[in-house]
Amino acid sequence: MSSRRMLLGMQFGNGYGAQVTSWRAPNVDPKNYTDIDAVVRYAQAAERGKIQFLFLPDTPALSSDLTHEAPQMTLDPLLTLAAVARGTSRIGMVATGSTTFIEPYNLARQFKALDVMSHGRAGWNPATTSDPNAAANFGQTIAERPERYGRAHEVIQIVQALWGSWEEDAWIADPTTGIFADPAKVRPVNLGGQYVSSRGPLPIPPSEQGQPVLFSAGGGEYGLTLAGRYASGVIGSTFSIDDARAQRDAAREAAGAAGRDPDEVKFFAGLMPAIAPTVRDAVERRMLLGTNTFPQRVPYLGQMLGLRLDPRQIDEPLTAEQLAAARPSPYDPRAPRAFEVANQGWTLREILGHGVIDYHPTPVGPASVTADHMQEWFEAGAVDGFWVSIDTYEDGIDTFVDEVVPLLQERGLFHEDYEGKTLRDHLGAAPQYGLDPRVSGVGVAH
Amino acid sequence: MSSRRMLLGMQFGNGYGAQVTSWRAPNVDPKNYTDIDAVVRYAQAAERGKIQFLFLPDTPALSSDLTHEAPQMTLDPLLTLAAVARGTSRIGMVATGSTTFIEPYNLARQFKALDVMSHGRAGWNPATTSDPNAAANFGQTIAERPERYGRAHEVIQIVQALWGSWEEDAWIADPTTGIFADPAKVRPVNLGGQYVSSRGPLPIPPSEQGQPVLFSAGGGEYGLTLAGRYASGVIGSTFSIDDARAQRDAAREAAGAAGRDPDEVKFFAGLMPAIAPTVRDAVERRMLLGTNTFPQRVPYLGQMLGLRLDPRQIDEPLTAEQLAAARPSPYDPRAPRAFEVANQGWTLREILGHGVIDYHPTPVGPASVTADHMQEWFEAGAVDGFWVSIDTYEDGIDTFVDEVVPLLQERGLFHEDYEGKTLRDHLGAAPQYGLDPRVSGVGVAH
Repeated sequence: MSSRRMLLGMQFGNGYGAQVTSWRAPNVDPKNYTDIDAVVRYAQAAERGKIQFLFLPDTPALSSDLTHEAPQMTLDPLLTLAAVARGTSRIGMVATGSTTFIEPYNLARQFKALDVMSHGRAGWNPATTSDPNAAANFGQTIAERPERYGRAHEVIQIVQALWGSWEEDAWIADPTTGIFADPAKVRPVNLGGQYVSSRGPLPIPPSEQGQPVLFSAGGGEYGLTLAGRYASGVIGSTFSIDDARAQRDAAREAAGAAGRDPDEVKFFAGLMPAIAPTVRDAVERRMLLGTNTFPQRVPYLGQMLGLRLDPRQIDEPLTAEQLAAARPSPYDPRAPRAFEVANQGWTLREILGHGVIDYHPTPVGPASVTADHMQEWFEAGAVDGFWVSIDTYEDGIDTFVDEVVPLLQERGLFHEDYEGKTLRDHLGAAPQYGLDPRVSGVGVAH
Repeated sequence: MSSRRMLLGMQFGNGYGAQVTSWRAPNVDPKNYTDIDAVVRYAQAAERGKIQFLFLPDTPALSSDLTHEAPQMTLDPLLTLAAVARGTSRIGMVATGSTTFIEPYNLARQFKALDVMSHGRAGWNPATTSDPNAAANFGQTIAERPERYGRAHEVIQIVQALWGSWEEDAWIADPTTGIFADPAKVRPVNLGGQYVSSRGPLPIPPSEQGQPVLFSAGGGEYGLTLAGRYASGVIGSTFSIDDARAQRDAAREAAGAAGRDPDEVKFFAGLMPAIAPTVRDAVERRMLLGTNTFPQRVPYLGQMLGLRLDPRQIDEPLTAEQLAAARPSPYDPRAPRAFEVANQGWTLREILGHGVIDYHPTPVGPASVTADHMQEWFEAGAVDGFWVSIDTYEDGIDTFVDEVVPLLQERGLFHEDYEGKTLRDHLGAAPQYGLDPRVSGVGVAH
């Protein structure tokens, strides 16, 4: 029995699932993309499993090939979560919001509104957004990294200052005296930097957790600095325990360097389980989604294995000759897993059905395979928890909740119920009122 | 019996009511500002009354004196309506969104998301936003009118083009063929002008009404041009039948000048009823809300009457000498009504309790007084309907729905039930797919 418990977030996207072809899975209404009832139902399923938070990636652009693939984001992260908040009561809700393409006042207002409406369950993943398609939607091109991150620091500091523009006890609302608020405790922000500025105050009082909690999902040196300074949760993309541990250590060090307690930063590794009674069933489940997309992935699978592969071979395994020549590519961290699966004699389509080209590690088989993976990584000190991407929400969330969660609970690795009511409660983060004195810097009064 | 029926919209703001002091009304939870449950309940009450739409004014700034007054807007118009959409099924939902301080792609995405989530019940009131407090929140100052409106035209055209970037039958979602959408029917927008541009497409298919419907609430020549070109509903502020008729005619003419059928534009006059069993009860109701704010309004009441008035006289009527000297100010269209009430012998506080300094005409007394006002204006051809501001939502919406609406229905002036499901249905506006060919202009391909 472990005394530490893991934390779980769930990827929450387009109404279908984490695969771009999840829309055509059996039993899924292929028009769920616009069905908010379905999205709310999925959030309720995650809440039933005591998942600490939903996490919505976002890029303000259409980047899928719509011929076969659904858009990967929800219609709009904040409006979706406003609806989800109506149908849930405990689960945290973290949305991505671009620091490049949304004004800080608008970010501050909408995230705080969500936080207040949901009684303190909101979180913000500030993203600098590097997709040129997104920039074009705003009549812009993507700026260089220093500028994008310079702006991001300013935006985050202004947003947090706007969130903190009401002191904890500023809102009085006493009908007998007629005093609505203490104006001395609702202060302008007057923050500005090189890229953005805002006067404030925001017209919104604190939520039950004070203000939304920050996440970070960006990598690299710039992303790490940002995470260390502001984030309570870091979403990582990693394919091995050693790499996960290194990423977690780096996030903790960055927090320490920013004057924070490293334990304030929780590191979440991505996970994309394929769960079914047997390994073969799980592979079949994924292959069903890949009818149109797997053939075009065969050449890349070849690259991962150091081979030239032709889509016409998709329903054959590697030949003995190919197997002998295969070498996992050093340029893709997923290659060792692809090599391992190929050596088990599966066809190319079946290898792809193991999720070897997916964005996160894919444990394949019964729920215990996923639970074992999670336990191993967690007990190795590689993560504080996982960010789980479910292939098909319609049945996949229930499967995870009904089969994986109980295993984790039996093993003492996951809580039996929410300990508190706010997202900060769920993460073990303190409520935040006003400005965090440890966070200040590039913004200058003006 | 009239064959034409009036249309009704309802002002929807901060959770309390249309008076800045509604928060302290009896029976109101003084913390309703952050209680989205209450807001949803009020929307449900309006829907019970078959009101065609809620209309949310908005300015991205805190402009109230918080000592005694609540912020006048909802926490956030779009998040509030996403929540309201979950608790209602027929009522239309129109939100104000700034063309100056929100990027067109973000406007397009969020309004279309709301439209899709609500099954075709969304409308947008594009506002150029002239409040310097708002500009300061974005590190800006307010531009001159030609620039603000020049940008507004570009923003509206880009937003509508993004909304129309999917053809009506573009979304296929056929799981047997694996075809999600016809990419030939999802087109980039590539629109740009002097101020803003966007490439598109938006990742959102059409709603049941195609796309959101446009409203306009701005006055003046610039506002009229904009209304004539794009708006299906025009919200007016007016204090007399003659002025209302002139505003309605002007909006219809502007539509004609833009090549549209004038009947496509519905004109709504504001109305702020004070309803109670007797006139005195209605005045008392309003005075209760004015304890802290009425004294400071006495000098302005004096200006309206051509007198110097001292707040210390607040509980006295005008003296005979003052009455003899009083002249309704020609600079305030509300002055004749103030003069009329003053001559009835009410105290200054009671005169203010008649709503003579409110933003819209205030029928005072039993429901029939309000119904009579509405009938008179409507039958005079001055309006297509009303935009009703309820003083206190907690009981005021029910009172309007239970007492005024049945009178209007008995008189054949208001529908018995929603005729259709979308906001366009409610307004008699045709569904809109793709670009309206009658609306194009300043945007240039680039």
